Amino acid sequence: MKILILNGPNLNMLGSREPEIYGTSTLSDIVNELTALAAGCNAQVDHFQSNEEGALVTRIQQSRGVHDGIIFNPGAYTHTSIALLDALRACDCPCIEVHLSNIHSREPFRRRSLTAQACLGQICGLGPMGYRLALTALLEMHGSKGTSR
Amino acid sequence: MKILILNGPNLNMLGSREPEIYGTSTLSDIVNELTALAAGCNAQVDHFQSNEEGALVTRIQQSRGVHDGIIFNPGAYTHTSIALLDALRACDCPCIEVHLSNIHSREPFRRRSLTAQACLGQICGLGPMGYRLALTALLEMHGSKGTSR
Amino acid sequence: MKILILNGPNLNMLGSREPEIYGTSTLSDIVNELTALAAGCNAQVDHFQSNEEGALVTRIQQSRGVHDGIIFNPGAYTHTSIALLDALRACDCPCIEVHLSNIHSREPFRRRSLTAQACLGQICGLGPMGYRLALTALLEMHGSKGTSR
Amino acid sequence: MKILILNGPNLNMLGSREPEIYGTSTLSDIVNELTALAAGCNAQVDHFQSNEEGALVTRIQQSRGVHDGIIFNPGAYTHTSIALLDALRACDCPCIEVHLSNIHSREPFRRRSLTAQACLGQICGLGPMGYRLALTALLEMHGSKGTSR
Amino acid sequence: MKILILNGPNLNMLGSREPEIYGTSTLSDIVNELTALAAGCNAQVDHFQSNEEGALVTRIQQSRGVHDGIIFNPGAYTHTSIALLDALRACDCPCIEVHLSNIHSREPFRRRSLTAQACLGQICGLGPMGYRLALTALLEMHGSKGTSR
Amino acid sequence: MKILILNGPNLNMLGSREPEIYGTSTLSDIVNELTALAAGCNAQVDHFQSNEEGALVTRIQQSRGVHDGIIFNPGAYTHTSIALLDALRACDCPCIEVHLSNIHSREPFRRRSLTAQACLGQICGLGPMGYRLALTALLEMHGSKGTSR
Amino acid sequence: MKILILNGPNLNMLGSREPEIYGTSTLSDIVNELTALAAGCNAQVDHFQSNEEGALVTRIQQSRGVHDGIIFNPGAYTHTSIALLDALRACDCPCIEVHLSNIHSREPFRRRSLTAQACLGQICGLGPMGYRLALTALLEMHGSKGTSR
Amino acid sequence: MKILILNGPNLNMLGSREPEIYGTSTLSDIVNELTALAAGCNAQVDHFQSNEEGALVTRIQQSRGVHDGIIFNPGAYTHTSIALLDALRACDCPCIEVHLSNIHSREPFRRRSLTAQACLGQICGLGPMGYRLALTALLEMHGSKGTSR
Amino acid sequence: MKILILNGPNLNMLGSREPEIYGTSTLSDIVNELTALAAGCNAQVDHFQSNEEGALVTRIQQSRGVHDGIIFNPGAYTHTSIALLDALRACDCPCIEVHLSNIHSREPFRRRSLTAQACLGQICGLGPMGYRLALTALLEMHGSKGTSR
Amino acid sequence: MKILILNGPNLNMLGSREPEIYGTSTLSDIVNELTALAAGCNAQVDHFQSNEEGALVTRIQQSRGVHDGIIFNPGAYTHTSIALLDALRACDCPCIEVHLSNIHSREPFRRRSLTAQACLGQICGLGPMGYRLALTALLEMHGSKGTSR
Amino acid sequence: MKILILNGPNLNMLGSREPEIYGTSTLSDIVNELTALAAGCNAQVDHFQSNEEGALVTRIQQSRGVHDGIIFNPGAYTHTSIALLDALRACDCPCIEVHLSNIHSREPFRRRSLTAQACLGQICGLGPMGYRLALTALLEMHGSKGTSR
Amino acid sequence: MKILILNGPNLNMLGSREPEIYGTSTLSDIVNELTALAAGCNAQVDHFQSNEEGALVTRIQQSRGVHDGIIFNPGAYTHTSIALLDALRACDCPCIEVHLSNIHSREPFRRRSLTAQACLGQICGLGPMGYRLALTALLEMHGSKGTSR
Repeated sequence: MKILILNGPNLNMLGSREPEIYGTSTLSDIVNELTALAAGCNAQVDHFQSNEEGALVTRIQQSRGVHDGIIFNPGAYTHTSIALLDALRACDCPCIEVHLSNIHSREPFRRRSLTAQACLGQICGLGPMGYRLALTALLEMHGSKGTSR
Repeated sequence: MKILILNGPNLNMLGSREPEIYGTSTLSDIVNELTALAAGCNAQVDHFQSNEEGALVTRIQQSRGVHDGIIFNPGAYTHTSIALLDALRACDCPCIEVHLSNIHSREPFRRRSLTAQACLGQICGLGPMGYRLALTALLEMHGSKGTSR
Repeated sequence: MKILILNGPNLNMLGSREPEIYGTSTLSDIVNELTALAAGCNAQVDHFQSNEEGALVTRIQQSRGVHDGIIFNPGAYTHTSIALLDALRACDCPCIEVHLSNIHSREPFRRRSLTAQACLGQICGLGPMGYRLALTALLEMHGSKGTSR
Repeated sequence: MKILILNGPNLNMLGSREPEIYGTSTLSDIVNELTALAAGCNAQVDHFQSNEEGALVTRIQQSRGVHDGIIFNPGAYTHTSIALLDALRACDCPCIEVHLSNIHSREPFRRRSLTAQACLGQICGLGPMGYRLALTALLEMHGSKGTSR
Repeated sequence: MKILILNGPNLNMLGSREPEIYGTSTLSDIVNELTALAAGCNAQVDHFQSNEEGALVTRIQQSRGVHDGIIFNPGAYTHTSIALLDALRACDCPCIEVHLSNIHSREPFRRRSLTAQACLGQICGLGPMGYRLALTALLEMHGSKGTSR
Repeated sequence: MKILILNGPNLNMLGSREPEIYGTSTLSDIVNELTALAAGCNAQVDHFQSNEEGALVTRIQQSRGVHDGIIFNPGAYTHTSIALLDALRACDCPCIEVHLSNIHSREPFRRRSLTAQACLGQICGLGPMGYRLALTALLEMHGSKGTSR
Repeated sequence: MKILILNGPNLNMLGSREPEIYGTSTLSDIVNELTALAAGCNAQVDHFQSNEEGALVTRIQQSRGVHDGIIFNPGAYTHTSIALLDALRACDCPCIEVHLSNIHSREPFRRRSLTAQACLGQICGLGPMGYRLALTALLEMHGSKGTSR
Repeated sequence: MKILILNGPNLNMLGSREPEIYGTSTLSDIVNELTALAAGCNAQVDHFQSNEEGALVTRIQQSRGVHDGIIFNPGAYTHTSIALLDALRACDCPCIEVHLSNIHSREPFRRRSLTAQACLGQICGLGPMGYRLALTALLEMHGSKGTSR
Repeated sequence: MKILILNGPNLNMLGSREPEIYGTSTLSDIVNELTALAAGCNAQVDHFQSNEEGALVTRIQQSRGVHDGIIFNPGAYTHTSIALLDALRACDCPCIEVHLSNIHSREPFRRRSLTAQACLGQICGLGPMGYRLALTALLEMHGSKGTSR
Repeated sequence: MKILILNGPNLNMLGSREPEIYGTSTLSDIVNELTALAAGCNAQVDHFQSNEEGALVTRIQQSRGVHDGIIFNPGAYTHTSIALLDALRACDCPCIEVHLSNIHSREPFRRRSLTAQACLGQICGLGPMGYRLALTALLEMHGSKGTSR
Repeated sequence: MKILILNGPNLNMLGSREPEIYGTSTLSDIVNELTALAAGCNAQVDHFQSNEEGALVTRIQQSRGVHDGIIFNPGAYTHTSIALLDALRACDCPCIEVHLSNIHSREPFRRRSLTAQACLGQICGLGPMGYRLALTALLEMHGSKGTSR
Repeated sequence: MKILILNGPNLNMLGSREPEIYGTSTLSDIVNELTALAAGCNAQVDHFQSNEEGALVTRIQQSRGVHDGIIFNPGAYTHTSIALLDALRACDCPCIEVHLSNIHSREPFRRRSLTAQACLGQICGLGPMGYRLALTALLEMHGSKGTSR
């Protein structure tokens, strides 16, 4: 089983960017933790981060036939990108959206998620643990060969 | 450690209510699963379901000094209840909001969560697994005595 | 055949409450009239009134396998209750919404009906006669074993 | 007693127009049924259908001193016609608005009724039976020489 | 003279609930103070608090013929409850709405008061003193047998 | 202790202006009553009325170091004046906003108060008594040297 | 000089239609008065009334090369008809819009005029005198061979 | 008979201010013309122009018992001044609002008139002639001792 | 094969109506060109233009079983006519909407097309050529007996 | 003559992406067809597809002095990209916007086109044929050396 | 060269008014600095501050033929004054709008500038330096006798 | 001292792009002027222009520890980019936003600046001079080692 970890704009700055909102873990910390967790389940993770909306679209397109699940933190594009929504709709594996902070308790423009409309679900506000929970969910769903709902 | 599982209106109908949206597990199935999972970690769960907004407010108030975390699916009150928002703000333990279905891909009035504004975070769209992930998160946060973010 | 007559908040005050809008019949008058009308068709009516949103949700849930139709005047909850909408969606018999006054000629916030979205139809502005017409419709539909549309 | 049955745009297509929404009865079927029902009560119905907003306005104006009640399905003009609202306001007999389908469960622009503001009330979602109930209501109100509310 | 003091959801938590917004007096402190103040004017106060919207509706209905004035802090229901608005409209004694905090300087959704539309007036932002001022006003109005405006 | 009574546009017309809304007391009646009430508590009131937004801004600025409290009825400027909001924010004594009529039961544009955002609180709908209650509140708060909340 | 008097839906009912809003003059009264007034200035008036939006569009089109000015009361179509706006834009003589009642003090949907965007100006709220003033204006403008602004 | 001509902000700049919109007549030209026209009917006009909202409010207040009609061009305050609306509502003679330009064909914020809500009617888009028509209307209405509608 | 060319209000004025927006071709020019083009493909065109919304509704209804495609320029009714939307939904042949001008670069109220919701597609901004392209499309689709998408 | 075919995000997935909406032709199929069609008219097409908003902006900039027309399907950027709108405004050749699906019958956020504001026109809902019609239009317009409107 | 420095409501309080937003310089400090800076360039500054909207309108009118540029901080009137917008439109010298604080990072109602629509440009968020930069810009533009853009 | 000059989409086209709005200077002209101005103050400027939102995000991230100030013209991304807002919030040096044209006098969608929320301030409408003023401001602020407000 192969999972794509996809991170959007400014997530490469984790650890130094507004730590009171986003915490002090770096993106490497998170990816390493996920790699270890996946390895323990005979799964494998690929990671890609980009500040470019288009590069993220392309990476989602390339997951076809390669990945069995996507964990996606679209960052700022969550709230405005129809292009990412369209890419996810054309995708053939389940995607779980993750946000480090609680989008419901921030500025109004962060409360709407366009991209989550094409995801299985969303986990927000639980910091780096959110990624681990998403990975657990994808592994469990794959293991049981059933859908989660 | 003691966790309160709180479920709002119509969740007592799980299993028979719109199964194409909410799945076929009953609320008892979910609570039993959570009880077992908690027991394995020396934790305990209390469960309360009500169709009454006010009864849910009262139950949150009674969690003071009793529970170490709340897992809350406010159902339809998610989108309209300022009373529940106020009760959660006055609460002294972390709360994670859970929704069985993906609120971002349903009717527009289900996309806004008033109650999540006073929660640590929210998990939606992952069916009964969402409750288990929330329990895992609360147990892990408590165990590490650190905050999740 | 068994029909549930369900009345929401403040309808217990009929007769004395703003009679220039709601008329001078009391709720008992209306229920008695419906009981007689049903009896003439070998049908039976149950009546329940509550000022509580949650109690109305519960009563709708309990109609499963018991009633063959619901006549529902949700009163003020018509315009705001997603919980009642969800309860009606999970219901297995047809429901007709009734309003004594014409909701289209009152305050703007009374023009929208959330609950009617999950009903077969709505009758408004015809006073107590609206309940009788709704009962006639349910009886006729049941008698013909066909749908009304 | 003389009742005017008034039908707006596209209602001449009943039976063949989107039958999954509007049913399979034709407009003649409905008018015949109403004629018979009225005859049984020593009343008489006139019928007029037009796709023209202005022709409907004119017909309402001509009801002055001729008809004792109007049953009006304004079709698509329900939601936009101030001209019909004005015509109904200038009318001297009670009007009941009827819709075959449930306007509350369709597109948002069908939920608002401008014309119902000048009617006694509205019946929707009950198919052709809605017309019969409206006729019953007008006959009963006329018979009792009292107002319905 | 008999006055009903009515408090809505979460006001039973006064003293411990967000004291930087709502102050440190408990609800008992406030009720005791009002009881004493009324007694000095040969008046009497009844007190009722509930987290239930419907229970508050019922209590307002029961004030008919019993109370000469109501002091009402509807809490979170202020901004959303049409049911309470309707109950107050059917009420036969004057009601003054009270808020401990200044609703105009908080979240936008707290600025609108549905319930105040059916009250004589509103006092907000003056803490527990607001209740005392409201009581003074009702006593003075009753004493002068005239209306306040 | 010195209190500034400040009245905005058209309040000089009290007594003759729309008496069914604003009552029959003149502004002099109100000011005289307040002067007497203050005198009984060893306090003093200054009064200023103007139809000019800018003159009211200036008067608030001049209260610095002179007055210990302001009772302000901004009249029509309540709903639109950012300049008065800014002047109140720069003010160093507490201000209570007063309205003779109940702003929540009038035209929608009267329901929002910009100026109250910078006040301690607001009293509305209680006629001239509202000014007296506001004065009582300021005197009591000053006497107790504590804040009201 | 030749002026077209154009009246929209329901204006044929003047005199009997909501006289408290529209007055007691009939449309003939108004047209006769205008005919006499024009005759005194060697001018001529044509009159056309229709309840049909399309018929009014056609009549405006036919004014090309025939009339030197239009006085137009579009009635209910004022607020919704883009077709009439387009017809007026294609018109080669000045048009003055007239309303018997004051559109600014009625329902919100009557305050916007689409058609006035393509007119020289608008006179409202002055009853039948509004037509006479419009005629005076067109005659004076024609006489002076200059534009009015 | 005595008429008050009242002009709001920037109307003292007529003739030089944006002549393509407001024309080349100066305010004196207009007032002189109106004085002459009134004199011919044994009437008298007073004129007042101010850039101050409050000064205009005061002048309207002072018309009580002095003037028999007001012709008011509130300029930019038309669209925002609740203070002027209130002053006009407290006024005891009829007021006609005049605008030189057609407010319906300019920026959206110029299309709404708050002040016209308290006027008899409004004339716009006819340049200086609009004032003359308004004066004619007031004179005629006064002469006939009847209302215009 | 038989195609209906349908044109809405004011399109009969093409050539003389706002030529800077709509061009200098007349409607006859366009229809002649389409007739010739169709003839070359053994197809036939019928043409109907009306300023009446209802007449256009009727013509669409009559296309049933007669025409194999419709080219429709609804003019001003594009943006407001639910009646035409309903007529098109009940229609049994494909319709392509055409606009001479680019509706996306004009007034905001011209950007929304209600009628296009029930069409196969829309061509705008290409002048008379738009009709020819639409005809080409319908002929090609018919020829290939396949759908265009 | 040289035409630029420009395709935005996710259009490289044509054929496999949501075929029930976008059809089964691949982008190569479409480009080949256009190349052949152009060749038959002695014209040439260049093709560029990108998922990047900025890359599309750059390609439009580079068309200056090179291409005689652009056929642009901006995909998801249609509805949000001011950058593409600005690039098109700075462009010196005509552009026709093409959409495979009918944007008027999909989600509300797809109905608005920012980019079409700077195009000659738009063709939508006709599948791959839309590109061919756009090419035909550009070729014809170029051939006739006249503008299309 | 002569420049008018114009300051709106509450700017006379600079230094003591909310210093965390507006800084500690007084208005005299700023004007003295500008006077010196102008003197060094053979230019002269006039200064005027008022809390009155109308007085500011008048002062702008009086700049005609006297001043060669205006530096204007309209304070709270920035966001609401159509009268100042109109005065600036009638003005014959360039105006630069200045704000001490960054209007884009404050309350939503401070983000819109009506007055800037009639200015050359705007400088905000740079404190007193903003005035100096505006003066530099006006001097440089005047020196080069060219336009700034 | 080192300043980053950052320019967004389409600014590489300056000089040829809509010169009536953006002027005739090229971007090189502007950068050369700024380089010279900085050199005179012992400062240095780096320049970067991109049409890519993500590339601009990356460049802002790379300014950490390298630059002492940023002058940023985000072009079209000003109004929509949350990603740039987030990048600026994570940035450790002051940024001043510059626009060549006056965003307050153009299309409504250009009036809101998301990015300016995370800047020190904004200069708009002053053409290339805006960049020079921004540089002057950053140099002066750095020189005085104090903040500007």
